[in-house]
Amino acid sequence: MTLLERVRGFAIRHDLWRPPTLGIVALSGGSDSVALLLLLHEFATHGEVVLDAAAHLNHSIRGRDADEDEAFCGELCARLMVPFVASRIDVPAKASLERVSLEVAARRARHAFLEQVRESRAADFVATAHTEDDQAETVLLRIVRGAGTRGLAGILPRRRHLIRPLLACSRDELRAYLTSRDQTWREDETNQDVTNPRNRVRHDLLPYLARHFNPSVRASLARLAEVARGDEIAIGPLVEAASADIVRVSTEEVSLDAAALNALPEGLARRVIQNALTRIRPDRICNLRDVDLVLAVAKGGPTAAEFSGLRVERFDDSAVLVKRARNLRPRRRGAGTRVPRR
Amino acid sequence: MTLLERVRGFAIRHDLWRPPTLGIVALSGGSDSVALLLLLHEFATHGEVVLDAAAHLNHSIRGRDADEDEAFCGELCARLMVPFVASRIDVPAKASLERVSLEVAARRARHAFLEQVRESRAADFVATAHTEDDQAETVLLRIVRGAGTRGLAGILPRRRHLIRPLLACSRDELRAYLTSRDQTWREDETNQDVTNPRNRVRHDLLPYLARHFNPSVRASLARLAEVARGDEIAIGPLVEAASADIVRVSTEEVSLDAAALNALPEGLARRVIQNALTRIRPDRICNLRDVDLVLAVAKGGPTAAEFSGLRVERFDDSAVLVKRARNLRPRRRGAGTRVPRR
Repeated sequence: MTLLERVRGFAIRHDLWRPPTLGIVALSGGSDSVALLLLLHEFATHGEVVLDAAAHLNHSIRGRDADEDEAFCGELCARLMVPFVASRIDVPAKASLERVSLEVAARRARHAFLEQVRESRAADFVATAHTEDDQAETVLLRIVRGAGTRGLAGILPRRRHLIRPLLACSRDELRAYLTSRDQTWREDETNQDVTNPRNRVRHDLLPYLARHFNPSVRASLARLAEVARGDEIAIGPLVEAASADIVRVSTEEVSLDAAALNALPEGLARRVIQNALTRIRPDRICNLRDVDLVLAVAKGGPTAAEFSGLRVERFDDSAVLVKRARNLRPRRRGAGTRVPRR
Repeated sequence: MTLLERVRGFAIRHDLWRPPTLGIVALSGGSDSVALLLLLHEFATHGEVVLDAAAHLNHSIRGRDADEDEAFCGELCARLMVPFVASRIDVPAKASLERVSLEVAARRARHAFLEQVRESRAADFVATAHTEDDQAETVLLRIVRGAGTRGLAGILPRRRHLIRPLLACSRDELRAYLTSRDQTWREDETNQDVTNPRNRVRHDLLPYLARHFNPSVRASLARLAEVARGDEIAIGPLVEAASADIVRVSTEEVSLDAAALNALPEGLARRVIQNALTRIRPDRICNLRDVDLVLAVAKGGPTAAEFSGLRVERFDDSAVLVKRARNLRPRRRGAGTRVPRR
């Protein structure tokens, strides 16, 4: 099966586009995104999708190299007759203004730019060139940092308007595809600073695992992500149905019917609690320890627990979650009064 | 919470024993199993379980050290007034007879011995001293080798008559507990040979992850295993119900209703296929690639596929699994004729 056929299969399986769908390609000039552009261009030639434009953001981080990247992308698009939209932003200035790392500032700027291009052109999606390698890094990083099975789903094939058609392709395959078509790309001065956890995973941990345990470890991790995502989809309707029975939301609090919660299989009970935590704190990703604390209180272990800005307390047949008001803390000891765990 | 209380909580949560339950402790003399014996002895003193005996197998691998281990265990049991059952087996001879590694031969011999002791004494369980460290190693090894979420459940708290009450305790905690009680243990000359994958995980990979990513990586992995097990329990009844509708078993073959299978969320479809594969091949652990092949055939991709001694073929509305008879192979090419994947 050719790379083109595999990407097509992936797109069909995840319903990423259908004939009249209008798409934007995020193009950095690196091998992954150049391959993405060429592949989508091929699909467009076959009438499977409409390639509306390629969008390039110059981050003003790498000086002349960045300008050359932009010129390279512009020329490539001109040759393919794909409209080219470029913009420039001073990421270092943005980072120091927002007091975040260059990496975070760059990601935010990129997302905002891509979404703006998509909206202004009324396109249906922005395709980004995340590969199996990126997926493996994400999943592995989450595993070693302590994710639940939910986190293992990793980078999703689609999140709102963002699609990732190359999630099942390795970087090596993409480069082989480009080479076979005599297509060059810009070598990103890959960040080799291994004090950054993702770089350490990429340059150190994954090569070590491939050498000593499993040469296809990246593919195995990407596959695990897909299975975990499948499990999420399978279990989702169950969680929704149970949550509808068990979780009550008011303006002040979220309460859980303890008896009904305790009657559930524990895996399901955990998901219902995750749901409840998301209702009271939509902006945060659930921590498994928080979920366990709520479960312990619902089961009649400690009568109350406090964690990450929330308080959970057992009242009669309910476990009630409230946001913790600063002035309600009785005593402040260390980072806050906590009911000891375990 | 003391170690004793935590182990009690774990035992209650997983329903490992109730007052009249009669148990055997597998005792090697190492810190984990000595702690297990002392803890169960405390529970027995409180009338929570009946400690019937400690069982020790001398593997005849480590010569005089092994004899000293046995003597140490015997003396400890005498002091605690716990019946001591010891036996000796020539593991090196068994390994060369069965043409397996020392490790595999030792594990088989140990399992057979423990089960024999349990049966002969009509006990309800054999408790082994697997810890959070063992759990973390198992889960990590499965992840890097390519497990699905099912494999992530790792070592189960109970498997038939075997129970593992210390699965949520770290080795360090157990040693601190022993030290606090002035209890010594036998230092196992731990196998440092890192060409053995588990030793490499223990002595190399986990310390690296703890140093560079997450000091509590072992606890995080053990927690992931517990969440995965919970998910399994939550999703189990769904899989059973769907399998009852979709999987038909006869003496010759297992067939799957393709339309009904394809109508399921993919995660659930995968589990139903795992079920079907287990019906036709009860002795083997499912490989995710095999599951994907069956799914592809059911979805109308390739019309047939062969893998690991099985053949799956699409007939009308069914995907039919049969064991592959040697004389039915049309041509033999390499490891067998295969329908190309992807």
